[in-house]
Amino acid sequence: MPALISASPTTPASRVEPAKIAARPNRDRLVATIEQLASIGAKPDGSVCRRGFSPEDVQGRELLAHWMKHLGMHVRVDAAGNLIGRLEGLDPQRPALATGSHLDTVPTGGRFDGALGVLAGLEACRALQDQGLRLRHGIELIAFADEESTMVGCKGLAGTASDDPESFATSNGQPIQDNLARIGGHWASLASARRSDEAYAAFLELHVEQGGVLEQRGDAIGVVEGVVGQRRFSINVRGQANHAGTTPMGLRQDALVAASRIVLAVEAMASRHPGDPVATVGRLEVWPNAANVVPGAVALTVDLRDVDPTVLDQLVEELMQQVERIGVETGCPIAVDPQFSVDPTPADAVVMATIAEAAADLGLSHSQLPSRASHDAQEVGRRWPMGMIFVPSRGGLSHSAAEFTSDEQCWAGTAVLLETLQRLDRQLP
Amino acid sequence: MPALISASPTTPASRVEPAKIAARPNRDRLVATIEQLASIGAKPDGSVCRRGFSPEDVQGRELLAHWMKHLGMHVRVDAAGNLIGRLEGLDPQRPALATGSHLDTVPTGGRFDGALGVLAGLEACRALQDQGLRLRHGIELIAFADEESTMVGCKGLAGTASDDPESFATSNGQPIQDNLARIGGHWASLASARRSDEAYAAFLELHVEQGGVLEQRGDAIGVVEGVVGQRRFSINVRGQANHAGTTPMGLRQDALVAASRIVLAVEAMASRHPGDPVATVGRLEVWPNAANVVPGAVALTVDLRDVDPTVLDQLVEELMQQVERIGVETGCPIAVDPQFSVDPTPADAVVMATIAEAAADLGLSHSQLPSRASHDAQEVGRRWPMGMIFVPSRGGLSHSAAEFTSDEQCWAGTAVLLETLQRLDRQLP
Repeated sequence: MPALISASPTTPASRVEPAKIAARPNRDRLVATIEQLASIGAKPDGSVCRRGFSPEDVQGRELLAHWMKHLGMHVRVDAAGNLIGRLEGLDPQRPALATGSHLDTVPTGGRFDGALGVLAGLEACRALQDQGLRLRHGIELIAFADEESTMVGCKGLAGTASDDPESFATSNGQPIQDNLARIGGHWASLASARRSDEAYAAFLELHVEQGGVLEQRGDAIGVVEGVVGQRRFSINVRGQANHAGTTPMGLRQDALVAASRIVLAVEAMASRHPGDPVATVGRLEVWPNAANVVPGAVALTVDLRDVDPTVLDQLVEELMQQVERIGVETGCPIAVDPQFSVDPTPADAVVMATIAEAAADLGLSHSQLPSRASHDAQEVGRRWPMGMIFVPSRGGLSHSAAEFTSDEQCWAGTAVLLETLQRLDRQLP
Repeated sequence: MPALISASPTTPASRVEPAKIAARPNRDRLVATIEQLASIGAKPDGSVCRRGFSPEDVQGRELLAHWMKHLGMHVRVDAAGNLIGRLEGLDPQRPALATGSHLDTVPTGGRFDGALGVLAGLEACRALQDQGLRLRHGIELIAFADEESTMVGCKGLAGTASDDPESFATSNGQPIQDNLARIGGHWASLASARRSDEAYAAFLELHVEQGGVLEQRGDAIGVVEGVVGQRRFSINVRGQANHAGTTPMGLRQDALVAASRIVLAVEAMASRHPGDPVATVGRLEVWPNAANVVPGAVALTVDLRDVDPTVLDQLVEELMQQVERIGVETGCPIAVDPQFSVDPTPADAVVMATIAEAAADLGLSHSQLPSRASHDAQEVGRRWPMGMIFVPSRGGLSHSAAEFTSDEQCWAGTAVLLETLQRLDRQLP
């Protein structure tokens, strides 16, 4: 059963009125919460380590729960380990406006990836309270469980999670059941985390871009078109290991020569494409990998991503054709094994337009771009209208101590989030 | 000081006469010695492991010393660890005819690589003794030390060895000094192993081809034109590790894409060359080597071999040009570091012609080819007229349990070796 962290105190009715005027976030308060959270799991090199389900993750979640309760939110943890705070709306019958992201990090994470989205949602709620404003829709602020590894939180909430516990590859190598128990989740009740179709009117996630597009364009705000889908393949090339001196060029079956042609074909097919898909051979291993031996086998991965499922299909088809051709031309048998496939999640057109209007209203330059990284929004967006707001990442860097988004940029993203929530509250039933 | 294994008994003078008639090797005796030696270090999979300086290597050398002493040879170990048996000639003032190869193996060696050359030389001496024949020149049968790793034996004898003990990368990782001591050599006296210019009239090495050329041609005997020279390079490509999802194709510095272009350029430049050099990228490693990260760095080796030093220089020049072009086109800095350089060793024209005549005389089909693998002959041939006799390797395979040359083929090579020794004995001063 979902664990109830607290019964929330109700907000004093005297200060509550419909949100007719615009609330704005408090920059200093936002920055202070980012800094306070970043101190949990802080490393000497400036990076942050709060792996999902770790003691640091638990500590971060406790801090957020404390803040949300202090704000008068109803706070609970669902079976999928999601920490959810609810600020009730004027009309409790309406579906909620949901927002959030994740608090867990990679081993050498930055202070913004995930955390910014959660803390911006918190600041939005605080800013509404400051002004004594209350939306018609309730707001649910969600810190999704373990985004960086299993995405069990967003998948559990969206009902897209596998029911095979073995399929959850946790970063500590321990069973998902044990891990969920550590943060108040409950594997056996995972289905109970699935929210009804009517639970949410929309979901918004603010996130750092983790790429260099906004910085290059000089835009403060990215209106995300959708989260890319992904196709991952494992490719094994078989050649014939042989003496690098005694084997004439014409008698070789060099697995690395065939593999190199695959690497270049993969790069070329994405680069040449009229859209902007990405394709990567990130992992490649050679056997026996000795300077004086013609390579006998190579294993490599191919990772394809695009927002458009048709483009993904095109890329997969071209990959298969290229691999077949290369196999014939080099005389090396090549096996292609699909590893996984994630469908793209388009953002909702109304939500996207609202984000763009909010940014324009705030005088912030903005443009559209796809999200090429995975996010909690990709799962939530399979069920409810979804929108993502990106803010720039300096140098496009993330998952490292160098991850950086300025105070001003964090504030701008938070202001757009809050303005979008207020606009959606007026627009949506 | 070189260790003296035994004072050799002199051959009974009554049976000795000049070699006017042709001696022929005894096939069954040859095969029996090959089998007996192969039992030392034999592995369950059929391979043989007698790493240089190992207890198995010592045991193999003791067996050979026993055989040579039994034959009336003067047996000693020089400072470089070479086990040398000398069958005195009718004219002890003449330089010797030297022959031999090595007894040490790679970890999964075959029974013929190296061993055949030594045991064929032994059989040649035995066959001469059978017939009561004695050459005018003395014969030195040499089992060179540690051919498969350091080549300290042939280099010590030829005087081409480095005087830096650190430069000898032994297979057991222990200092060359300690290793030499295990087999009766002596590092501090290495210079004493260097033989005088007048020591040898010629050197012959019988060896399995370790390639598929003779088998393809259907020839019994290969007359080796020379041992190829080699240029080895270590190449480091620097890119920018980045998120495989969020980094657009146009903003990438993918070290593996640049490295793959080098692999294909290296393969193409050797394949296209009008001669038949070989060029290999045998080792390639990717960092961080994760499916979802654009490769940030790649290290690879380039190995170039040819018998013609001019061709080697051409290949090196083309490699440098290609790498520079690829670096500019991909935006990845590429560093090329020479690892080592071995000059080609041409075979002696007179010795080659004599080998060909001997084969023809024995009714054995033969043709010329270069040796693209390293051999003891490559160092010995820098000082004295050198010739190598190749016999076919089934499937071109060696350094494995699958290494195979038939009894008949071993016998044919030994017969050519013996006939060549007898012809050189008549021809050379």
